[in-house]
Amino acid sequence: MILIDGKQTNELPADDRGLAYGDGLFETIKITNGRPLLWRRHMRRLLQGCQVLGIEYDDEAQLLQETLQLAEGHEHGIIKIILTRGSGGRGYRPDARCPARRIVSYHALPDYDVGHRQQGIRLFRCATPVSVNSALAGLKTLCRLEQVMAQQEFEESEFAEGLMLDPDGRVIEGTRSNVFAVKDDELLTPTLKSAGIKGIMRDVIIEMAKNDGMTVHERELGHEEFRSANEIFVCNSILGVWPVIEYQNTIYQRGPVTVDIMNKLETRLSEYE
Amino acid sequence: MILIDGKQTNELPADDRGLAYGDGLFETIKITNGRPLLWRRHMRRLLQGCQVLGIEYDDEAQLLQETLQLAEGHEHGIIKIILTRGSGGRGYRPDARCPARRIVSYHALPDYDVGHRQQGIRLFRCATPVSVNSALAGLKTLCRLEQVMAQQEFEESEFAEGLMLDPDGRVIEGTRSNVFAVKDDELLTPTLKSAGIKGIMRDVIIEMAKNDGMTVHERELGHEEFRSANEIFVCNSILGVWPVIEYQNTIYQRGPVTVDIMNKLETRLSEYE
Repeated sequence: MILIDGKQTNELPADDRGLAYGDGLFETIKITNGRPLLWRRHMRRLLQGCQVLGIEYDDEAQLLQETLQLAEGHEHGIIKIILTRGSGGRGYRPDARCPARRIVSYHALPDYDVGHRQQGIRLFRCATPVSVNSALAGLKTLCRLEQVMAQQEFEESEFAEGLMLDPDGRVIEGTRSNVFAVKDDELLTPTLKSAGIKGIMRDVIIEMAKNDGMTVHERELGHEEFRSANEIFVCNSILGVWPVIEYQNTIYQRGPVTVDIMNKLETRLSEYE
Repeated sequence: MILIDGKQTNELPADDRGLAYGDGLFETIKITNGRPLLWRRHMRRLLQGCQVLGIEYDDEAQLLQETLQLAEGHEHGIIKIILTRGSGGRGYRPDARCPARRIVSYHALPDYDVGHRQQGIRLFRCATPVSVNSALAGLKTLCRLEQVMAQQEFEESEFAEGLMLDPDGRVIEGTRSNVFAVKDDELLTPTLKSAGIKGIMRDVIIEMAKNDGMTVHERELGHEEFRSANEIFVCNSILGVWPVIEYQNTIYQRGPVTVDIMNKLETRLSEYE
Protein backbone atom coordinates (compact mmCIF):
# COMPACT_ATOMS: atom_id res chain seq x y z
CA MET A 1 0.00 0.00 0.00
CA ILE A 2 1.24 3.45 -0.90
CA LEU A 3 0.26 6.91 0.29
CA ILE A 4 1.18 9.82 -1.98
CA ASP A 5 0.67 13.09 -0.14
CA GLY A 6 -1.61 11.20 2.19
CA LYS A 7 -3.84 9.68 -0.48
CA GLN A 8 -3.91 5.97 -1.18
CA THR A 9 -2.75 5.61 -4.77
CA ASN A 10 -0.09 3.98 -6.85
CA GLU A 11 0.12 6.84 -9.32
CA LEU A 12 2.79 9.48 -9.21
CA PRO A 13 2.60 12.62 -11.38
CA ALA A 14 5.06 11.93 -14.20
CA ASP A 15 6.63 15.37 -13.85
CA ASP A 16 7.88 14.69 -10.33
CA ARG A 17 11.41 15.98 -9.85
CA GLY A 18 12.37 12.84 -7.96
CA LEU A 19 12.02 10.94 -11.22
CA ALA A 20 13.47 13.65 -13.44
CA TYR A 21 16.59 14.47 -11.42
CA GLY A 22 16.78 12.26 -8.35
CA ASP A 23 15.72 15.44 -6.59
CA GLY A 24 14.75 14.04 -3.23
CA LEU A 25 15.63 11.85 -0.25
CA PHE A 26 14.44 8.61 1.27
CA GLU A 27 14.40 6.63 4.49
CA THR A 28 13.88 2.91 5.02
CA ILE A 29 12.52 2.33 8.51
CA LYS A 30 12.12 -1.00 10.28
CA ILE A 31 8.79 -1.75 11.93
CA THR A 32 9.22 -3.88 15.05
CA ASN A 33 6.25 -4.79 17.24
CA GLY A 34 4.21 -2.36 15.23
CA ARG A 35 6.49 0.62 15.96
CA PRO A 36 8.98 2.41 13.70
CA LEU A 37 12.45 1.70 15.07
CA LEU A 38 14.87 4.60 15.55
CA TRP A 39 12.20 6.96 14.24
CA ARG A 40 13.73 10.14 15.65
CA ARG A 41 17.08 9.44 14.00
CA HIS A 42 15.50 8.70 10.64
CA MET A 43 13.56 11.96 10.86
CA ARG A 44 16.61 13.94 11.91
CA ARG A 45 18.56 12.69 8.87
CA LEU A 46 15.63 13.25 6.50
CA LEU A 47 14.82 16.77 7.68
CA GLN A 48 18.47 17.80 7.86
CA GLY A 49 18.78 16.51 4.30
CA CYS A 50 15.84 18.70 3.29
CA GLN A 51 17.64 21.71 4.70
CA VAL A 52 20.82 20.91 2.81
CA LEU A 53 18.92 20.44 -0.47
CA GLY A 54 16.62 23.41 0.10
CA ILE A 55 13.48 21.25 0.10
CA GLU A 56 10.90 22.92 2.31
CA TYR A 57 9.42 20.22 4.50
CA ASP A 58 9.54 19.62 8.23
CA ASP A 59 6.26 17.94 9.18
CA GLU A 60 7.52 15.01 11.22
CA ALA A 61 4.08 14.49 12.79
CA GLN A 62 2.50 14.07 9.36
CA LEU A 63 5.06 11.43 8.37
CA LEU A 64 4.58 9.60 11.67
CA GLN A 65 0.82 9.57 11.23
CA GLU A 66 1.14 8.13 7.71
CA THR A 67 3.76 5.63 8.85
CA LEU A 68 1.51 4.35 11.64
CA GLN A 69 -1.46 4.24 9.27
CA LEU A 70 0.46 1.97 6.88
CA ALA A 71 2.07 -0.09 9.64
CA GLU A 72 -1.26 -0.78 11.33
CA GLY A 73 -1.95 -4.48 11.69
CA HIS A 74 1.68 -5.36 10.85
CA GLU A 75 3.88 -6.79 13.57
CA HIS A 76 7.00 -6.35 11.44
CA GLY A 77 7.88 -4.76 8.15
CA ILE A 78 9.51 -1.79 6.47
CA ILE A 79 8.18 1.69 5.89
CA LYS A 80 9.86 3.53 3.04
CA ILE A 81 9.48 7.29 2.95
CA ILE A 82 10.45 9.10 -0.25
CA LEU A 83 10.40 12.89 -0.06
CA THR A 84 10.84 14.71 -3.38
CA ARG A 85 10.93 18.38 -4.29
CA GLY A 86 7.60 17.81 -6.05
CA SER A 87 6.71 19.01 -9.53
CA GLY A 88 7.64 22.22 -11.24
CA GLY A 89 10.56 24.46 -11.95
CA ARG A 90 12.41 25.08 -15.18
CA GLY A 91 14.80 22.29 -15.93
CA TYR A 92 17.19 21.66 -13.07
CA ARG A 93 16.24 24.96 -11.45
CA PRO A 94 13.49 24.35 -8.88
CA ASP A 95 10.46 26.54 -8.36
CA ALA A 96 10.63 27.75 -4.76
CA ARG A 97 6.85 27.62 -4.52
CA CYS A 98 6.40 23.97 -5.49
CA PRO A 99 5.52 21.91 -2.41
CA ALA A 100 7.48 18.77 -1.52
CA ARG A 101 5.85 15.43 -2.30
CA ARG A 102 5.89 12.42 0.02
CA ILE A 103 5.52 8.82 -1.05
CA VAL A 104 5.13 6.50 1.94
CA SER A 105 4.88 2.75 1.42
CA TYR A 106 4.79 -0.44 3.47
CA HIS A 107 6.85 -3.50 2.52
CA ALA A 108 7.29 -6.91 4.11
CA LEU A 109 10.60 -7.53 5.87
CA PRO A 110 13.07 -9.29 3.54
CA ASP A 111 13.47 -12.94 4.44
CA TYR A 112 17.19 -12.82 5.15
CA ASP A 113 19.05 -16.06 5.74
CA VAL A 114 19.42 -16.35 9.51
CA GLY A 115 22.92 -17.68 8.87
CA HIS A 116 24.03 -14.21 7.78
CA ARG A 117 23.59 -13.09 11.34
CA GLN A 118 24.49 -16.28 13.18
CA GLN A 119 27.46 -17.45 11.11
CA GLY A 120 28.40 -14.43 9.02
CA ILE A 121 28.59 -13.45 5.35
CA ARG A 122 30.96 -13.42 2.41
CA LEU A 123 31.70 -9.89 1.20
CA PHE A 124 32.29 -9.12 -2.49
CA ARG A 125 34.60 -6.36 -3.72
CA CYS A 126 32.65 -4.25 -6.23
CA ALA A 127 34.43 -2.59 -9.14
CA THR A 128 31.79 0.15 -9.38
CA PRO A 129 33.13 3.05 -7.34
CA VAL A 130 31.16 5.21 -4.95
CA SER A 131 30.52 8.71 -6.31
CA VAL A 132 32.59 11.43 -4.70
CA ASN A 133 30.74 14.67 -3.97
CA SER A 134 31.27 16.55 -0.72
CA ALA A 135 28.03 18.52 -1.23
CA LEU A 136 25.89 15.38 -1.17
CA ALA A 137 27.99 12.97 0.91
CA GLY A 138 26.23 11.48 3.90
CA LEU A 139 22.73 12.15 2.55
CA LYS A 140 20.37 9.36 1.50
CA THR A 141 19.40 11.01 -1.79
CA LEU A 142 17.43 9.34 -4.58
CA CYS A 143 20.60 9.25 -6.75
CA ARG A 144 21.58 5.65 -6.12
CA LEU A 145 22.45 4.33 -9.56
CA GLU A 146 25.95 3.37 -8.45
CA GLN A 147 24.48 1.01 -5.85
CA VAL A 148 22.21 -0.50 -8.51
CA MET A 149 25.27 -1.04 -10.72
CA ALA A 150 27.34 -2.48 -7.89
CA GLN A 151 24.69 -5.01 -6.87
CA GLN A 152 24.58 -6.34 -10.41
CA GLU A 153 28.23 -7.34 -10.09
CA PHE A 154 27.65 -10.26 -7.71
CA GLU A 155 25.14 -13.00 -6.98
CA GLU A 156 23.24 -12.64 -3.75
CA SER A 157 23.36 -16.40 -3.24
CA GLU A 158 27.16 -16.23 -3.06
CA PHE A 159 27.79 -12.89 -1.42
CA ALA A 160 25.32 -11.26 0.97
CA GLU A 161 26.89 -7.84 0.45
CA GLY A 162 29.36 -5.97 -1.74
CA LEU A 163 32.02 -3.47 -0.67
CA MET A 164 32.36 -0.15 -2.49
CA LEU A 165 35.48 1.98 -2.64
CA ASP A 166 36.03 5.53 -3.76
CA PRO A 167 38.03 6.26 -6.93
CA ASP A 168 41.22 6.49 -4.84
CA GLY A 169 40.72 3.01 -3.43
CA ARG A 170 39.56 4.00 0.03
CA VAL A 171 36.87 1.85 1.64
CA ILE A 172 33.57 3.75 1.92
CA GLU A 173 30.58 1.44 2.48
CA GLY A 174 28.63 -1.61 1.44
CA THR A 175 26.10 -1.40 -1.39
CA ARG A 176 23.29 -1.15 1.19
CA SER A 177 25.17 -0.96 4.47
CA ASN A 178 27.95 0.76 6.35
CA VAL A 179 31.11 -1.12 7.26
CA PHE A 180 33.17 -1.40 10.42
CA ALA A 181 36.56 -2.97 11.04
CA VAL A 182 37.95 -4.03 14.41
CA LYS A 183 41.67 -3.72 15.08
CA ASP A 184 43.35 -4.04 18.47
CA ASP A 185 39.93 -3.77 20.12
CA GLU A 186 39.31 -0.42 18.46
CA LEU A 187 36.49 0.29 16.05
CA LEU A 188 37.28 1.79 12.64
CA THR A 189 34.72 3.07 10.17
CA PRO A 190 35.21 5.20 7.05
CA THR A 191 34.65 8.93 7.25
CA LEU A 192 31.78 9.85 4.91
CA LYS A 193 32.75 13.46 4.29
CA SER A 194 33.20 13.08 0.55
CA ALA A 195 31.21 9.94 -0.30
CA GLY A 196 28.75 7.43 1.13
CA ILE A 197 25.52 7.44 3.13
CA LYS A 198 25.60 8.15 6.84
CA GLY A 199 23.59 5.21 8.09
CA ILE A 200 21.35 5.33 11.15
CA MET A 201 22.62 1.99 12.48
CA ARG A 202 26.20 3.19 11.95
CA ASP A 203 25.46 6.19 14.17
CA VAL A 204 23.88 4.03 16.85
CA ILE A 205 26.84 1.63 16.90
CA ILE A 206 29.35 4.47 17.13
CA GLU A 207 27.41 6.07 19.97
CA MET A 208 26.91 2.82 21.86
CA ALA A 209 30.55 1.79 21.51
CA LYS A 210 31.76 5.16 22.73
CA ASN A 211 29.35 5.06 25.67
CA ASP A 212 30.82 1.69 26.56
CA GLY A 213 34.30 3.17 26.64
CA MET A 214 35.49 1.83 23.30
CA THR A 215 37.75 3.85 21.03
CA VAL A 216 36.04 4.59 17.69
CA HIS A 217 37.85 6.09 14.72
CA GLU A 218 35.85 7.71 11.94
CA ARG A 219 38.52 8.39 9.36
CA GLU A 220 39.89 7.51 5.94
CA LEU A 221 40.24 3.75 5.71
CA GLY A 222 42.58 2.28 3.13
CA HIS A 223 41.77 -1.02 1.49
CA GLU A 224 44.76 -2.86 2.90
CA GLU A 225 44.11 -1.64 6.42
CA PHE A 226 40.51 -2.81 6.05
CA ARG A 227 41.55 -6.20 4.73
CA SER A 228 44.02 -6.77 7.52
CA ALA A 229 41.48 -6.05 10.28
CA ASN A 230 40.81 -8.64 13.00
CA GLU A 231 37.07 -8.46 12.53
CA ILE A 232 34.78 -6.89 9.93
CA PHE A 233 31.04 -6.33 9.99
CA VAL A 234 28.38 -4.53 7.98
CA CYS A 235 25.22 -2.90 9.35
CA ASN A 236 22.04 -1.12 8.42
CA SER A 237 18.67 -0.28 9.98
CA ILE A 238 16.91 -3.31 8.56
CA LEU A 239 19.42 -6.16 8.82
CA GLY A 240 21.14 -4.95 12.00
CA VAL A 241 24.69 -6.36 12.03
CA TRP A 242 26.13 -9.08 9.83
CA PRO A 243 29.66 -10.29 10.63
CA VAL A 244 31.91 -10.79 7.60
CA ILE A 245 33.65 -14.15 7.57
CA GLU A 246 35.24 -14.01 4.12
CA TYR A 247 36.56 -11.19 1.97
CA GLN A 248 38.89 -11.67 -0.98
CA ASN A 249 39.98 -15.14 0.14
CA THR A 250 40.76 -13.97 3.65
CA ILE A 251 38.84 -15.70 6.43
CA TYR A 252 37.70 -13.65 9.41
CA GLN A 253 36.30 -14.72 12.75
CA ARG A 254 32.86 -13.78 13.87
CA GLY A 255 34.93 -12.19 16.59
CA PRO A 256 34.29 -11.12 20.19
CA VAL A 257 33.92 -7.38 19.53
CA THR A 258 31.36 -7.94 16.77
CA VAL A 259 29.42 -10.44 18.87
CA ASP A 260 29.47 -8.09 21.84
CA ILE A 261 28.05 -5.26 19.71
CA MET A 262 25.37 -7.54 18.28
CA ASN A 263 24.32 -8.68 21.74
CA LYS A 264 24.22 -5.18 23.16
CA LEU A 265 22.25 -3.90 20.17
CA GLU A 266 19.70 -6.63 20.73
CA THR A 267 19.02 -5.62 24.30
CA ARG A 268 19.62 -1.89 24.15
CA LEU A 269 18.38 -0.74 20.75
CA SER A 270 15.21 0.61 22.35
CA GLU A 271 17.35 3.10 24.29
CA TYR A 272 18.36 4.76 21.04
CA GLU A 273 15.52 6.69 19.50
CA MET B 1 1.36 15.87 -23.30
CA ILE B 2 3.07 12.77 -21.96
CA LEU B 3 3.25 9.23 -23.28
CA ILE B 4 4.15 6.54 -20.76
CA ASP B 5 4.89 3.28 -22.57
CA GLY B 6 2.96 4.70 -25.48
CA LYS B 7 -0.18 5.58 -23.54
CA GLN B 8 -1.26 9.16 -23.02
CA THR B 9 -1.21 9.65 -19.26
CA ASN B 10 0.37 11.79 -16.58
CA GLU B 11 0.53 8.95 -14.08
CA LEU B 12 3.65 6.99 -13.39
CA PRO B 13 3.58 3.82 -11.25
CA ALA B 14 4.98 4.96 -7.90
CA ASP B 15 7.32 1.96 -7.70
CA ASP B 16 9.28 3.02 -10.79
CA ARG B 17 13.01 2.56 -10.27
CA GLY B 18 13.70 5.88 -11.91
CA LEU B 19 12.09 7.56 -8.93
CA ALA B 20 13.45 5.18 -6.31
CA TYR B 21 17.10 5.14 -7.40
CA GLY B 22 17.63 7.44 -10.38
CA ASP B 23 17.81 4.14 -12.25
CA GLY B 24 17.48 5.39 -15.81
CA LEU B 25 18.61 7.81 -18.50
CA PHE B 26 17.18 10.75 -20.38
CA GLU B 27 17.56 12.78 -23.56
CA THR B 28 16.38 16.30 -24.32
CA ILE B 29 15.91 16.67 -28.05
CA LYS B 30 15.27 19.87 -29.96
CA ILE B 31 12.41 19.91 -32.48
CA THR B 32 13.18 22.18 -35.44
CA ASN B 33 10.80 22.47 -38.36
CA GLY B 34 8.87 19.58 -36.90
CA ARG B 35 11.87 17.21 -36.91
CA PRO B 36 14.01 15.95 -34.01
CA LEU B 37 17.46 17.46 -34.41
CA LEU B 38 20.51 15.20 -34.14
CA TRP B 39 18.18 12.26 -33.53
CA ARG B 40 20.69 9.54 -34.36
CA ARG B 41 23.23 10.93 -31.92
CA HIS B 42 20.70 11.19 -29.11
CA MET B 43 19.67 7.60 -29.77
CA ARG B 44 23.24 6.39 -29.86
CA ARG B 45 23.99 7.93 -26.48
CA LEU B 46 20.73 6.66 -24.96
CA LEU B 47 21.06 3.09 -26.20
CA GLN B 48 24.77 2.90 -25.37
CA GLY B 49 23.81 4.12 -21.90
CA CYS B 50 21.28 1.30 -21.65
CA GLN B 51 24.01 -1.18 -22.44
CA VAL B 52 26.32 0.24 -19.78
CA LEU B 53 23.57 0.18 -17.14
CA GLY B 54 22.21 -3.20 -18.20
CA ILE B 55 18.78 -1.80 -19.13
CA GLU B 56 17.33 -3.95 -21.88
CA TYR B 57 15.93 -1.59 -24.47
CA ASP B 58 16.89 -0.85 -28.06
CA ASP B 59 13.70 0.08 -29.90
CA GLU B 60 14.77 3.28 -31.62
CA ALA B 61 11.86 3.07 -34.07
CA GLN B 62 9.37 3.03 -31.20
CA LEU B 63 10.91 6.13 -29.65
CA LEU B 64 10.93 7.91 -33.01
CA GLN B 65 7.28 7.08 -33.59
CA GLU B 66 6.33 8.46 -30.16
CA THR B 67 8.53 11.52 -30.62
CA LEU B 68 6.88 12.35 -33.95
CA GLN B 69 3.44 11.73 -32.47
CA LEU B 70 4.08 14.28 -29.73
CA ALA B 71 5.87 16.74 -32.01
CA GLU B 72 3.04 16.71 -34.53
CA GLY B 73 1.69 20.17 -35.19
CA HIS B 74 4.65 21.81 -33.45
CA GLU B 75 7.14 23.78 -35.52
CA HIS B 76 9.59 23.98 -32.63
CA GLY B 77 9.90 22.53 -29.18
CA ILE B 78 11.62 19.95 -27.02
CA ILE B 79 11.00 16.25 -26.70
CA LYS B 80 12.22 14.74 -23.46
CA ILE B 81 12.68 10.99 -23.37
CA ILE B 82 13.14 9.33 -19.98
CA LEU B 83 13.98 5.65 -20.05
CA THR B 84 13.91 3.87 -16.69
CA ARG B 85 14.58 0.29 -15.66
CA GLY B 86 10.86 0.04 -14.88
CA SER B 87 9.37 -1.43 -11.71
CA GLY B 88 10.51 -4.41 -9.71
CA GLY B 89 13.56 -5.96 -8.19
CA ARG B 90 14.57 -6.27 -4.57
CA GLY B 91 15.97 -3.03 -3.28
CA TYR B 92 18.83 -1.79 -5.43
CA ARG B 93 19.11 -5.17 -7.14
CA PRO B 94 17.08 -5.11 -10.37
CA ASP B 95 14.87 -7.89 -11.60
CA ALA B 96 16.27 -8.93 -14.99
CA ARG B 97 12.75 -9.61 -16.25
CA CYS B 98 11.26 -6.18 -15.55
CA PRO B 99 10.81 -4.30 -18.82
CA ALA B 100 12.18 -0.79 -19.24
CA ARG B 101 9.68 2.08 -19.03
CA ARG B 102 9.66 5.08 -21.36
CA ILE B 103 8.25 8.50 -20.52
CA VAL B 104 8.16 10.74 -23.59
CA SER B 105 6.94 14.33 -23.26
CA TYR B 106 6.69 17.48 -25.36
CA HIS B 107 7.69 20.91 -23.99
CA ALA B 108 7.77 24.39 -25.49
CA LEU B 109 11.22 25.77 -26.33
CA PRO B 110 12.53 27.95 -23.48
CA ASP B 111 12.31 31.62 -24.36
CA TYR B 112 16.02 32.36 -24.05
CA ASP B 113 17.20 35.95 -24.21
CA VAL B 114 18.50 36.44 -27.75
CA GLY B 115 21.30 38.50 -26.24
CA HIS B 116 22.82 35.34 -24.77
CA ARG B 117 23.62 34.26 -28.28
CA GLN B 118 24.25 37.61 -29.91
CA GLN B 119 26.22 39.36 -27.16
CA GLY B 120 27.22 36.54 -24.80
CA ILE B 121 26.63 35.53 -21.19
CA ARG B 122 28.06 35.92 -17.73
CA LEU B 123 29.23 32.62 -16.24
CA PHE B 124 28.97 31.89 -12.52
CA ARG B 125 31.40 29.67 -10.63
CA CYS B 126 29.38 27.11 -8.67
CA ALA B 127 30.64 25.80 -5.36
CA THR B 128 28.70 22.53 -5.75
CA PRO B 129 31.16 20.07 -7.27
CA VAL B 130 30.42 17.60 -10.03
CA SER B 131 30.26 14.00 -8.79
CA VAL B 132 33.23 11.87 -9.70
CA ASN B 133 32.41 8.32 -10.78
CA SER B 134 34.19 6.72 -13.72
CA ALA B 135 31.47 4.05 -14.04
CA LEU B 136 28.77 6.64 -14.76
CA ALA B 137 30.76 9.53 -16.28
CA GLY B 138 29.57 10.67 -19.68
CA LEU B 139 26.08 9.20 -19.30
CA LYS B 140 22.97 11.35 -18.99
CA THR B 141 21.54 9.43 -16.04
CA LEU B 142 18.59 10.53 -13.93
CA CYS B 143 20.95 11.25 -11.00
CA ARG B 144 21.24 15.02 -11.44
CA LEU B 145 20.83 16.37 -7.94
CA GLU B 146 24.20 18.13 -8.09
CA GLN B 147 22.99 20.18 -11.07
CA VAL B 148 19.81 21.07 -9.17
CA MET B 149 21.97 22.20 -6.24
CA ALA B 150 24.35 24.15 -8.45
CA GLN B 151 21.56 26.06 -10.21
CA GLN B 152 20.23 27.23 -6.87
CA GLU B 153 23.51 29.03 -6.24
CA PHE B 154 22.95 31.81 -8.77
CA GLU B 155 20.19 33.96 -10.22
CA GLU B 156 19.33 33.27 -13.83
CA SER B 157 18.76 36.97 -14.41
CA GLU B 158 22.41 37.68 -13.56
CA PHE B 159 24.18 34.60 -14.88
CA ALA B 160 22.88 32.53 -17.77
CA GLU B 161 24.97 29.53 -16.76
CA GLY B 162 27.12 28.19 -13.93
CA LEU B 163 30.44 26.37 -14.17
CA MET B 164 31.01 23.16 -12.24
CA LEU B 165 34.38 21.79 -11.19
CA ASP B 166 35.39 18.40 -9.86
CA PRO B 167 36.58 18.04 -6.25
CA ASP B 168 40.18 18.59 -7.38
CA GLY B 169 39.30 21.93 -9.00
CA ARG B 170 39.36 20.82 -12.61
CA VAL B 171 36.80 22.35 -14.94
CA ILE B 172 34.20 19.77 -16.04
CA GLU B 173 31.03 21.38 -17.45
CA GLY B 174 28.23 23.88 -17.06
CA THR B 175 25.15 23.02 -15.00
CA ARG B 176 23.27 22.23 -18.23
CA SER B 177 25.95 22.57 -20.89
CA ASN B 178 29.45 21.58 -21.90
CA VAL B 179 32.24 24.13 -21.99
CA PHE B 180 34.96 24.95 -24.49
CA ALA B 181 37.96 27.26 -24.21
CA VAL B 182 39.91 28.72 -27.13
CA LYS B 183 43.64 29.26 -26.76
CA ASP B 184 46.06 30.05 -29.59
CA ASP B 185 43.37 29.07 -32.10
CA GLU B 186 43.09 25.62 -30.56
CA LEU B 187 39.94 24.22 -28.97
CA LEU B 188 40.11 22.84 -25.43
CA THR B 189 37.34 20.96 -23.70
CA PRO B 190 37.44 18.89 -20.50
CA THR B 191 37.78 15.14 -20.73
CA LEU B 192 34.68 13.52 -19.22
CA LYS B 193 36.23 10.20 -18.24
CA SER B 194 35.57 10.56 -14.54
CA ALA B 195 32.77 13.14 -14.35
CA GLY B 196 30.29 15.10 -16.45
CA ILE B 197 27.80 14.43 -19.24
CA LYS B 198 29.01 13.86 -22.78
CA GLY B 199 26.82 16.32 -24.62
CA ILE B 200 25.56 15.81 -28.14
CA MET B 201 26.37 19.38 -29.20
CA ARG B 202 29.84 18.99 -27.69
CA ASP B 203 30.41 15.96 -29.93
CA VAL B 204 29.16 17.81 -33.01
CA ILE B 205 31.42 20.79 -32.33
CA ILE B 206 34.47 18.61 -31.78
CA GLU B 207 33.77 16.70 -34.99
CA MET B 208 33.08 19.81 -37.04
CA ALA B 209 36.16 21.62 -35.77
CA LYS B 210 38.37 18.63 -36.52
CA ASN B 211 36.88 18.29 -40.00
CA ASP B 212 37.76 21.94 -40.55
CA GLY B 213 41.37 21.27 -39.65
CA MET B 214 41.31 22.73 -36.18
CA THR B 215 43.25 21.20 -33.32
CA VAL B 216 40.93 19.99 -30.56
CA HIS B 217 42.16 18.84 -27.15
CA GLU B 218 39.90 16.74 -24.96
CA ARG B 219 41.86 16.59 -21.74
CA GLU B 220 42.06 17.65 -18.12
CA LEU B 221 41.48 21.37 -17.91
CA GLY B 222 42.65 23.25 -14.82
CA HIS B 223 40.72 26.22 -13.57
CA GLU B 224 43.51 28.73 -14.18
CA GLU B 225 44.09 27.50 -17.70
CA PHE B 226 40.36 27.84 -18.35
CA ARG B 227 40.21 31.34 -16.92
CA SER B 228 43.15 32.53 -18.96
CA ALA B 229 41.67 31.35 -22.27
CA ASN B 230 41.18 33.79 -25.15
CA GLU B 231 37.59 32.77 -25.68
CA ILE B 232 35.09 30.66 -23.74
CA PHE B 233 31.75 29.28 -24.78
CA VAL B 234 29.09 26.87 -23.52
CA CYS B 235 26.88 24.63 -25.61
CA ASN B 236 24.04 22.15 -25.53
CA SER B 237 21.50 20.64 -27.92
CA ILE B 238 18.78 23.14 -27.11
CA LEU B 239 20.57 26.48 -26.80
CA GLY B 240 23.29 25.79 -29.35
CA VAL B 241 26.32 27.95 -28.47
CA TRP B 242 26.49 30.86 -26.02
CA PRO B 243 29.74 32.85 -25.89
CA VAL B 244 30.94 33.74 -22.39
CA ILE B 245 31.81 37.41 -22.00
CA GLU B 246 32.41 37.51 -18.25
CA TYR B 247 33.69 34.99 -15.74
CA GLN B 248 34.97 35.90 -12.28
CA ASN B 249 35.53 39.55 -13.18
CA THR B 250 37.47 38.70 -16.31
CA ILE B 251 36.03 40.04 -19.56
CA TYR B 252 36.20 37.87 -22.66
CA GLN B 253 35.55 38.72 -26.28
CA ARG B 254 32.83 37.07 -28.27
CA GLY B 255 35.84 36.06 -30.29
CA PRO B 256 36.44 34.99 -33.87
CA VAL B 257 36.76 31.25 -33.24
CA THR B 258 33.50 31.12 -31.28
CA VAL B 259 31.69 33.20 -33.89
CA ASP B 260 33.04 31.01 -36.69
CA ILE B 261 31.79 27.86 -34.91
CA MET B 262 28.38 29.46 -34.32
CA ASN B 263 28.06 30.44 -37.97
CA LYS B 264 29.13 27.06 -39.25
CA LEU B 265 26.76 25.28 -36.87
CA GLU B 266 23.92 27.38 -38.18
CA THR B 267 24.46 26.37 -41.77
CA ARG B 268 25.80 22.87 -41.34
CA LEU B 269 24.00 21.34 -38.37
CA SER B 270 21.77 19.37 -40.71
CA GLU B 271 24.85 17.49 -41.94
CA TYR B 272 25.29 15.99 -38.49
CA GLU B 273 22.64 13.43 -37.71
